[in-house]
Amino acid sequence: QDKLVSVEDSINQELPQVEMPTPPRKWFETIKISGYVQSRYNGLFETNPDLAVEQMDKNWGADKGLSLRRVRVKVSGWIHEKVYMYIQGDFAGEFSLKDAYMDLYLDDNKSLWVRAGQSKVPFGYENMQSSQHRLPLDRSDAINSALKNERDMMAVLYYTPEPAREVYKYLKANNLKHSGNYGAFALGAFNGQTANKKDENDNLHTVVRASYPFQFANDQIMELSVHAYTGKYVTTSVSEGVGVSDASGERIADDANGYNFIDRRVGATFVWYPQPIGFQAEYNYGEGPEYDGATNTIKVQDLHGAYAMVMGKFDIGHHTFFPFTRYIYYDGGKKFELDARSYEVNDLEIGIEWQPHKAFELVAMYVFADRRYDDSASSFNDGVYTPNYQAGNILRLQAQINF
Amino acid sequence: QDKLVSVEDSINQELPQVEMPTPPRKWFETIKISGYVQSRYNGLFETNPDLAVEQMDKNWGADKGLSLRRVRVKVSGWIHEKVYMYIQGDFAGEFSLKDAYMDLYLDDNKSLWVRAGQSKVPFGYENMQSSQHRLPLDRSDAINSALKNERDMMAVLYYTPEPAREVYKYLKANNLKHSGNYGAFALGAFNGQTANKKDENDNLHTVVRASYPFQFANDQIMELSVHAYTGKYVTTSVSEGVGVSDASGERIADDANGYNFIDRRVGATFVWYPQPIGFQAEYNYGEGPEYDGATNTIKVQDLHGAYAMVMGKFDIGHHTFFPFTRYIYYDGGKKFELDARSYEVNDLEIGIEWQPHKAFELVAMYVFADRRYDDSASSFNDGVYTPNYQAGNILRLQAQINF
Amino acid sequence: QDKLVSVEDSINQELPQVEMPTPPRKWFETIKISGYVQSRYNGLFETNPDLAVEQMDKNWGADKGLSLRRVRVKVSGWIHEKVYMYIQGDFAGEFSLKDAYMDLYLDDNKSLWVRAGQSKVPFGYENMQSSQHRLPLDRSDAINSALKNERDMMAVLYYTPEPAREVYKYLKANNLKHSGNYGAFALGAFNGQTANKKDENDNLHTVVRASYPFQFANDQIMELSVHAYTGKYVTTSVSEGVGVSDASGERIADDANGYNFIDRRVGATFVWYPQPIGFQAEYNYGEGPEYDGATNTIKVQDLHGAYAMVMGKFDIGHHTFFPFTRYIYYDGGKKFELDARSYEVNDLEIGIEWQPHKAFELVAMYVFADRRYDDSASSFNDGVYTPNYQAGNILRLQAQINF
Repeated sequence: QDKLVSVEDSINQELPQVEMPTPPRKWFETIKISGYVQSRYNGLFETNPDLAVEQMDKNWGADKGLSLRRVRVKVSGWIHEKVYMYIQGDFAGEFSLKDAYMDLYLDDNKSLWVRAGQSKVPFGYENMQSSQHRLPLDRSDAINSALKNERDMMAVLYYTPEPAREVYKYLKANNLKHSGNYGAFALGAFNGQTANKKDENDNLHTVVRASYPFQFANDQIMELSVHAYTGKYVTTSVSEGVGVSDASGERIADDANGYNFIDRRVGATFVWYPQPIGFQAEYNYGEGPEYDGATNTIKVQDLHGAYAMVMGKFDIGHHTFFPFTRYIYYDGGKKFELDARSYEVNDLEIGIEWQPHKAFELVAMYVFADRRYDDSASSFNDGVYTPNYQAGNILRLQAQINF
Repeated sequence: QDKLVSVEDSINQELPQVEMPTPPRKWFETIKISGYVQSRYNGLFETNPDLAVEQMDKNWGADKGLSLRRVRVKVSGWIHEKVYMYIQGDFAGEFSLKDAYMDLYLDDNKSLWVRAGQSKVPFGYENMQSSQHRLPLDRSDAINSALKNERDMMAVLYYTPEPAREVYKYLKANNLKHSGNYGAFALGAFNGQTANKKDENDNLHTVVRASYPFQFANDQIMELSVHAYTGKYVTTSVSEGVGVSDASGERIADDANGYNFIDRRVGATFVWYPQPIGFQAEYNYGEGPEYDGATNTIKVQDLHGAYAMVMGKFDIGHHTFFPFTRYIYYDGGKKFELDARSYEVNDLEIGIEWQPHKAFELVAMYVFADRRYDDSASSFNDGVYTPNYQAGNILRLQAQINF
Repeated sequence: QDKLVSVEDSINQELPQVEMPTPPRKWFETIKISGYVQSRYNGLFETNPDLAVEQMDKNWGADKGLSLRRVRVKVSGWIHEKVYMYIQGDFAGEFSLKDAYMDLYLDDNKSLWVRAGQSKVPFGYENMQSSQHRLPLDRSDAINSALKNERDMMAVLYYTPEPAREVYKYLKANNLKHSGNYGAFALGAFNGQTANKKDENDNLHTVVRASYPFQFANDQIMELSVHAYTGKYVTTSVSEGVGVSDASGERIADDANGYNFIDRRVGATFVWYPQPIGFQAEYNYGEGPEYDGATNTIKVQDLHGAYAMVMGKFDIGHHTFFPFTRYIYYDGGKKFELDARSYEVNDLEIGIEWQPHKAFELVAMYVFADRRYDDSASSFNDGVYTPNYQAGNILRLQAQINF
């Protein structure tokens, strides 16, 4: 052993220290491929095949059998010390681009950055959270009606101080299904016509958001958020004969196609993370284009909506279970659907997610849905408006893999 | 040298054994990107430009010149000890999803697994075999008419015992162009409307298959397979005026669009692998929707079809040559084409595949085609039905790269 | 230290030399994922919202706001010692395939190769140069009107001798934004209907190109190129009522849809690379289908076009700046646009590209555009032809990331 020590000493003390040049990074050390896949079965115990939920899941309603809801592949990476890039596409049948943006960091400790490209508009909490992490199968109409696919072309300035980033790391490390870091403070501009659509006016929407996670001495975390956006939305999917009316109900244009409507909302979020019992609620209020059956026109109307969810997180051996129940309310239009379709939603969901492994998840969710949705085609016939009410229950299953 | 040995001994015997923690796997160690590309030239010695083969190659007929038949990219990998994922897309011009599934293994030696998502329906041998490995350029109408793109949304239970898996390994190692492991036994359910289509009824198709490779003492291998499926198919591509008639020829509906038709088949396969001479044949029989020119309706009719192929495998230096000749017969409908188009096919092919290297293949194939294919648009005019017979010869070339 | 040396000697001299087998290459050592993303803002100081430039940027004109011009992902690699493969797709909203080809090298030092598949047709310099490297935001109408998307299905023989390849390496190493190696000499055949379109006739286009970079003793480089193609183009996007007329103006067909038109050009390029001041110019002349407003027909007409650009390259610290100004002239048709739209273009551009890092670039470009573009829909009304002249200025911004 002495000899060995002497050899070691020789190596450590007497050989000259050679400075090895860092080899250039290989492409696979710079960028990373990842993603997830969601398969669903919406065919169990459906009580009303006429109840469809277009924005949330095209394969809900009328026995749509097995379906792929999301096939996501992402390419992302730090292409420079201060530049991060992220491209995400959905390949479920046809291709549609989700994200293509870059983050340009403005300070050395990565608190302040500009994001440019197609990305999520920082409005709401649920919209920010990835579908990979959300417990209920779909986002709520209340919040998601603000932004179809949650995204738009935009430029946003984000700021997140160090303490908030530490809490985000804790949330991630503890599998608490966070929304990700979309800034403790965000201020930005976006086209306003939602993702993969070209802008239709010379008016950019503006958005502002403040969100902060407070961690208490017992490790419990409460996140509070307020957010708002404003702009003009141009309707581009309009049935023949649908005009525009003003607040008094006066018809002011005969064709709503290409018309500029006020589009603005303000909202707030409260989240108590499930350690082991959590609570999550959001509310938003605003105004925007909405179909009016009485006059067969689109007009600017008030909208408001909310959801509240109670959820748990229980580890049993290697397995994690997340039971949850959520109630959704929404009264307003969906500007991006046919005739800025008018909605009244009262849904209750009860479900559970089972994670046997981080690569694999199963969700079962029973839904009690009660909905009115009106556009000219569904609800206006021979000059008479008949509201289109649909109610029904269904058991929905989802298997998800993460890679 | 004594000193060296003493140092080695010191290291081996006296230093404490340190347990190195396994570093987490990098993304590129878990998942793998691979694929293949097929370029074709269908412009040589074509005798009948009116002869088109819609399902097999859209660029066959009327001098379609150079074309890309398949541009495939796959992302696959073991995302967990017992979970394998596989995503494959085709990028030839436009994107279409091929596979997006996961395999969940139920036992420790990987004999039994559930596959869920979009994948190949286990019916037939040729349908299972990748186009990357098939000798003729396209699948036969006889078998492929069962399932356009071979795939559907499904959940299937597979079982393959150890001895069969050993034979599959032998087939792969010896470049014998196997179908891959789709189970010695398979039992499953699928939507029934083929890949990337939503389900149209509350009826799932069911499928069952048994297939076994017998390897003899002289290493020769014979594979036998039987398979069947049943369900109801809903026609969604129907010309105006095309109704539905029953077995007696009575018109029972004026619009075949959305109609539920019986759709079922039973088939068998025999394969003798080419060491160096092989033989492959498949037959299937069943009933399903088929256009009837006499009444301009779609009705449930019998269908049957078969192909037989003789092929060789010859290694000359680094090069491998696979000469082959195949005869195809089919009499029945193609449920997924316009008006469940009616077919009578008699094709003979003679060709050779040349593999100078595993990354690169060339195929030349001369085809004698004799086909009748009728739909309302092509064959029904002013109340008169005229069968659409097309016969012709053509030389087809294909270059393939594998990565 | 003596002991150490003796140990080292023992290792080096007395232990048998073990030949380690080369481990097989991993997939990520064979193929590589790379790409780039271009985000634009065309909404500043626009003087004429009616001025659109369909081929170059669909989001130019009428306040199209923020947009993604290109989201490119490539998979490429040496899949064999002598076979290189390259697949590139564009994912900006929808997917479209750009390249899918293989290079098969015919000699040992990689001077001579055949490229087969979808790739750029070797006509012009600007068409060969990647948009990742070009200084102005879009290619010129003068050259790019020859080939929409620059690509087609083809088989081309390329030859580049060693000295030329050395100059290309110098150009790349010095960030001189070269076109890449498309052969000092190229000879090929292509379908003629541009990328992702099927061929429409039994006539392949042929193309020939010679291009050589001369490097002088002071390292200055001059590249000269001549190129030509000929074939028949079939118009497939034709307004109702648009016929075909011959050279004398005689109407010879009532429907120009599916008609075979002469389509041929010859061109030349001069490039002096910016060390630090450069100059680049191209000219081409030919004939092809072009809309004729007087007769509301498409007829074969002469076309010619050119551009000239002066550019600089200045390194300031880690930053590189490329100021440039370009003038474009084109008088002729665009065979692939509606009615082989007739163009007269006089554009002047002044801009600058700023490269703070190789992963990130910013371009600002001010455009003075003066254009006539006529098709039957825009310019022929009630039997009267009125030329559609549009002139206007705009400031355009682009951010690009490379990975």
